[in-house]
Amino acid sequence: MAEATGAIDEASNMKVILKHYVSGSPQETDMHLTAGTIKLKAPTDSNAVVVKNLFLSCDPYMVFKMMKLDRHYSESYTPGLPITGYGVAKVLDSSHPDFKNDDLVWGLTGWEEYSLITETNHLFKIQHTDVPLSYYAGILGMPGMTAYIGFYELCSPKTGEYVFVSAASGAVGQLVGQFAKLQGCYVVGCAGSNEKVDLLKNKFGFDEAFNYKEEPDYNAALKRFFPEGIDIYFDNVGGKILDAVLLNLRVYARIAVCGMISQYNLEQPEGVHNLTSIVMKQVRMQGYLVFDYYHLYPKYLQMILPMIREGKVVYVEDIADGLENAPAALVGLFSGRNIGKQVVAVNCV
Amino acid sequence: MAEATGAIDEASNMKVILKHYVSGSPQETDMHLTAGTIKLKAPTDSNAVVVKNLFLSCDPYMVFKMMKLDRHYSESYTPGLPITGYGVAKVLDSSHPDFKNDDLVWGLTGWEEYSLITETNHLFKIQHTDVPLSYYAGILGMPGMTAYIGFYELCSPKTGEYVFVSAASGAVGQLVGQFAKLQGCYVVGCAGSNEKVDLLKNKFGFDEAFNYKEEPDYNAALKRFFPEGIDIYFDNVGGKILDAVLLNLRVYARIAVCGMISQYNLEQPEGVHNLTSIVMKQVRMQGYLVFDYYHLYPKYLQMILPMIREGKVVYVEDIADGLENAPAALVGLFSGRNIGKQVVAVNCV
Repeated sequence: MAEATGAIDEASNMKVILKHYVSGSPQETDMHLTAGTIKLKAPTDSNAVVVKNLFLSCDPYMVFKMMKLDRHYSESYTPGLPITGYGVAKVLDSSHPDFKNDDLVWGLTGWEEYSLITETNHLFKIQHTDVPLSYYAGILGMPGMTAYIGFYELCSPKTGEYVFVSAASGAVGQLVGQFAKLQGCYVVGCAGSNEKVDLLKNKFGFDEAFNYKEEPDYNAALKRFFPEGIDIYFDNVGGKILDAVLLNLRVYARIAVCGMISQYNLEQPEGVHNLTSIVMKQVRMQGYLVFDYYHLYPKYLQMILPMIREGKVVYVEDIADGLENAPAALVGLFSGRNIGKQVVAVNCV
Repeated sequence: MAEATGAIDEASNMKVILKHYVSGSPQETDMHLTAGTIKLKAPTDSNAVVVKNLFLSCDPYMVFKMMKLDRHYSESYTPGLPITGYGVAKVLDSSHPDFKNDDLVWGLTGWEEYSLITETNHLFKIQHTDVPLSYYAGILGMPGMTAYIGFYELCSPKTGEYVFVSAASGAVGQLVGQFAKLQGCYVVGCAGSNEKVDLLKNKFGFDEAFNYKEEPDYNAALKRFFPEGIDIYFDNVGGKILDAVLLNLRVYARIAVCGMISQYNLEQPEGVHNLTSIVMKQVRMQGYLVFDYYHLYPKYLQMILPMIREGKVVYVEDIADGLENAPAALVGLFSGRNIGKQVVAVNCV
């Protein structure tokens, strides 16, 4: 692998390519690695930058881009080309006035060693490096903003409220739980293994947590943990857990719909039967894209950086080492293999 | 029947009694009429009023009060006692400083000829009588406010947006459609008969309308009427129509969930499969109770009264004559027998 320096014009570039559109659960075999080359110069008549990718973020939304959908909420990937996603990178060359060589950035990049980024409007310059750089793929990047916006902006939490989080040990859920505790809420999370449940209770400070795979009756489980009902549900999974939550809401409950990962790979999504609760309990249920709230990123940073430094929030990452392990890491999200935020370290040597 | 005057202390009083809690669709036989008497004096040490009921409003939410539910959103009726609901009435005696004899009022009253109203916080004095009095059970009362709040406050409509209304010829839907047209939206309604569809197009000015009973595929119907998708869905029915709407939403769509009448009488509510649209399209779906917005009633009146007087909105009522026909009128709501707002005229002689 050629190290990028000013002297080297072109570098070899390993890429993760989408072979074909997927339907149902994505598999490692839907992607392959291929070697290419890249010019390490940004075109001068552009706003582009060339970066060396350091960390790539594995996020559930990426499955939509792997599918050919007419209802997709973002452009699909193109088979034969590298997939894209959030990442942390170092600028090697820049034609953009806001970025210069050696700047660290986070934002949308390619699943490859080096990327030419032409759409720089979602690229953020990293100003604080006293925290782990990989955090900019998680707590300090898109997933962190997703937790912040979903919980604070959409759910308007009040002290003493009852909060439930699904996929609670994941990139977003672990933060929502900690935010809820800091807000003086009672918070319960569910996750898919006892190891994750242990993390929720003993690392992230959830009041209670349960392994949904060991609960035959979600409604009964929620009644046990929420005898008074649920004010805020931070939904990462949809489906049967959402349906049980609907039976246990308090009046004026809010549901931030961050994701419905349990449904993405089903041919026919499960039926949700208890939506009349939305009328009966005057519930607000809201889906959102964090893109629409990036103007609040400086405000979020101002809140979260001191919390990280003072140990008031912790963040658990699951870092796969090397681009060759990226497809497995991404696919693992959908079986819950990851513990904490799934990141791929590209070529940090 | 004794006419109430200051000289008469007690009157005979016909009442509609709930016989027993219902499950599933309510039937006429779940209620019966019985004769009683009532003292026409409000207790002096109270804020109560005694009224003569003029019009009673038949509203879908009443079915919940006929059931014994642990998830109900208001107190159940008590079997053996008269049912209650919105109505228009004349004050015969008052211990309340805001109401005096012969005042006309609308608000919660009993399904009987005369009522002693002790909870007067949802009783409004009628100030404008140049419009039909029965309108205070509809366009100028709770259903009117429900349309106004759901459409304007919850859906924040913009000129040119695409609006869909279900149960569109009903008490609320007919107004939402007219508000949407006045707002410069494109609006389509569905209803359960060709007669109602004709009303929607030719009386209320909907751009398009369809009879859902004649559409084998709701998704296909919505694609036909909304090639560009739906920005605002005013949901009165839930179930399969909601599920098809979810497949046809535009980004940032809003769903005001006013009711889910198709689901209320089912043992097991239908499954809604397409909720992932809420994430993919950043949808806000909100249930509400109009009670919470009554502080906006003066603002609503200020808007709607001139519209009525100038003929800018019309309102179709289905008035059943006589308390003895009240049970059939109420039950008819759930089979769609009514055309327009279902009201019962009690004893207007």
